[in-house]
This record gives sequence, C-alpha cells and structure tokens, in this order.
Amino acid sequence: MKEAKIEVCYSPALFPFYENHEAIVVVTDILRASSAIVTAFMNGVDRIIPVGTLEEARAYKEKGYMVAAERDGIVRDFADFGNSPYNFTGEKVKGKEIVYSTTNGTHAIHLASTGKRVLIGAYLNLTALAQFIIKEGRDLLVLCAGWKNKFNLEDTLFAGALARKVLINNRFHTICDATLGAMDLYEAASADMMAYIEKVAQRHRLKKNNLDDVIGYCHEEDLTDLIPVLEGYSLVRMQNSR
Amino acid sequence: MKEAKIEVCYSPALFPFYENHEAIVVVTDILRASSAIVTAFMNGVDRIIPVGTLEEARAYKEKGYMVAAERDGIVRDFADFGNSPYNFTGEKVKGKEIVYSTTNGTHAIHLASTGKRVLIGAYLNLTALAQFIIKEGRDLLVLCAGWKNKFNLEDTLFAGALARKVLINNRFHTICDATLGAMDLYEAASADMMAYIEKVAQRHRLKKNNLDDVIGYCHEEDLTDLIPVLEGYSLVRMQNSR
Repeated sequence: MKEAKIEVCYSPALFPFYENHEAIVVVTDILRASSAIVTAFMNGVDRIIPVGTLEEARAYKEKGYMVAAERDGIVRDFADFGNSPYNFTGEKVKGKEIVYSTTNGTHAIHLASTGKRVLIGAYLNLTALAQFIIKEGRDLLVLCAGWKNKFNLEDTLFAGALARKVLINNRFHTICDATLGAMDLYEAASADMMAYIEKVAQRHRLKKNNLDDVIGYCHEEDLTDLIPVLEGYSLVRMQNSR
Repeated sequence: MKEAKIEVCYSPALFPFYENHEAIVVVTDILRASSAIVTAFMNGVDRIIPVGTLEEARAYKEKGYMVAAERDGIVRDFADFGNSPYNFTGEKVKGKEIVYSTTNGTHAIHLASTGKRVLIGAYLNLTALAQFIIKEGRDLLVLCAGWKNKFNLEDTLFAGALARKVLINNRFHTICDATLGAMDLYEAASADMMAYIEKVAQRHRLKKNNLDDVIGYCHEEDLTDLIPVLEGYSLVRMQNSR
C-alpha cells in the first residue's frame, strides 16, 4: 500500500502551501549551507544553532559563541568564519557548539521546524537519508532553500535525487508536480552533473567571489551516513548515524 | 548586445520576488484558463473581464453580464458556463463582453498587472507571442498560474517552450534557474508531450471530473496569431493580432 507521499517545495515562500505536520522535512541548500552542516558533523561538531538573522548571530557572538555567518556568499566581519564546507574543519569545530547564519539555508530550517522531524540533506549523506526515510515510512517533504525565495536548480536536483531513491520503496508515491519535475531535471543532469551545474546561477555567484572551489565537493555522494537532525532549536547528530 | 532578460515565475506566491515593472508579463494557465481566453478571442469575444473572486463574478452576473466561473474545475451555479475552452464558442461569445473567474488564472492576471504589458499565453498562440516579444525587445517575465500557489508542470513546460523560442533572438538572455529548468523540462517532454502530460497532477484532477477532453486541444500550437492583452481591467485583442 502506498501510504507515504513525497512532495518537494521549491522555495521557503511556498512552504505554507506544502506544510505537513506529519512529514519528515528534509531541508537542503546544496551550495553551500546543508553541505557545510553535514561536513561539520562529519568533523565532530557537537551542536549547530541555526539562526535566521545576522542580529541573532551577532548577539550569540557577543555571548562568546563561535559563529559562522555569511550573506550573499561573503563572511560577516563579526563572524569566525563563513559558509564554505572547507571552513568547518575538525580543528575548528570538533566537540564545539557553533552558531550559523546564512542567506537562505538557516531561514529554511526555522520554517521547517513545524514538521514531525527536520533533517539536513546533502549529496554527502544522500543514501543514508533515503534509507532512514524509507525505514520511517512517513510522508517526505523536501524543502529547497532556493535563492532569496526564488527557485534554484542545485537544490531541486538534489530533491530529485532523493525522491528517486525513496520512491524505489513501494510504500512511497508522489502526485506532486514539483517532485516529478525535480526527478526529471535530475535525470537530465545526472549524466554529467558538473557540466549541468556550470549553468546554474549560484555557480556564477560563487565564482564571482572565488568561492566556487567547493562545487565538486558539494556534489560528492555518500561520504557519510551521518544525518543532522533538529532537536529543539539546534541541530545534532542523529543517534545511530555515523 | 543581450539587453533583455527572461525570467519564469512558477507560482503567483513567488511573484513579488520576480516583479519587474519594465517587463512584458505573459500569464499562462494552460489547463485551462489561458487556453480558454485565447479561444474566446479566436471566436470573436469583444472583451473579457478577469475577476479574482467568486463574489465579484456573482456581482457582475447580477448586473447582467455573461459570466464564466469555476473553482477546482467545477462550474459555479450562478455562472453561464465554466472553464473549458469548448464553452467559449462563437455562438456564445462573439461580440460580447464576458466576466471570467477561475481557480488560479484570473488571480495571476491581476497580480501581473504591475508589468509594462500583460499578455495571455497558451500553446494556441505560442509563435505569435514569441514574435511579438522579440519585436518589443523588452524583458520577459512568464508568470505560471500554478495550482493554488503550488508549482505545476503544464504551465512550466509552456514557459520553457516560450523561453526557447524567444532566446533564439540574440538580444535575449537568461540567468534565471527557473527559466533554465523550464526549458530542460520542455526538452524532456516535447518528444511526446501527450505521454508526458499523462503524469501531471492537473490531468488527473480534470479526468476525475470528466473534464480532460480538452488536454490535446490545449497543447495544439499556433492555431492563431491573436494575443489577448490587458487594457485597464479587461482583456482585449491586441491590435494587429489576427
């Protein structure tokens, strides 16, 4: 019986129309917030507090927290570092609690918090995520962080990749056009993902600021089985995830 | 010089993020409002007054107007007819002024009215539309009516078809991920459009109500050169369009 449905929401601004309190919500911001968060947990961070505004991030900094904060790809002056996954090294983050604020991703995490469970998704943990969702058997809602509420391709492609992996299990179905579109775009892109990513707008934004060195890394699949999960107001490593 | 840009907005709820007062805005609601509007003009309607709410539609009816009104595909009891292009026959609409209210399309037309010029787009007038936009040389913003603010495939595919035709002219460019996505989906679908449309959600909604007889017709290209344009609060036939 196909009891669990899959939906994809292309923008935080569309979230009210997809909101589903029974769903597992996977938030993705491939370039770069969700890839950075997964990397931080791979490198042993203890807890990440996602905050929507720079004011909140600054207030945490003044209280002594380590803060990662960027807007439009540029690290903020009061912050310890910015949004590149390469910043979240074990040396910096292992065993630490850090505060994180980005242009799109951290706002999306806050929105998503009405879901039954909120997970952070990236190619880096794609298969582990799909397996967990299949095991739970609940509705899946993928929330793409997008770019300032506009649709973006890189998050959509990831949503398509995840939906495809979950739909293999026959308890899941979808009647959501956004999910079907994301899977078809992933299908078109996956034969040569890096060539496809050449054309996305965010790649050009990152390149302009010499921040595009992480694009290949952010599209590497299954470097970890670890799944960051929202617990209260902060992200922690899901138990039993490695 | 690539001076004019193309953008596609997938939902009325995202319109504020794409709004462009200098752009020609093409509103599309392929299944079925924009196809019905183009058909009405093909059949000699004089003027269509799109209204967002059923209350407004009813008020016009009480003033003696002919009214087409539906919600969720179902014609409303006070209305003269519903949303099928097949309703807008010459016998009914020729020389008339009619009031029209639909689930998604007429609301989108109202939103779009901040653009420099608002046109109604469908496959039925696709090439004429592309040629007009190229001649004008202004920015193009395609507003997809979607389904209750959610993304839908059939409007997106049309946006992709139109963007592709306009981009042939080298004064136009796009850096919009939604436009690139729409073109890639159209590319994937166009080899066998009817097979592709089989899977879209709106097809199933229409089928459930035995309203899916128009799907083939709504995907026929270039039956007319006529372009409906918003003039004040109503749609009229653009001058010189046949």
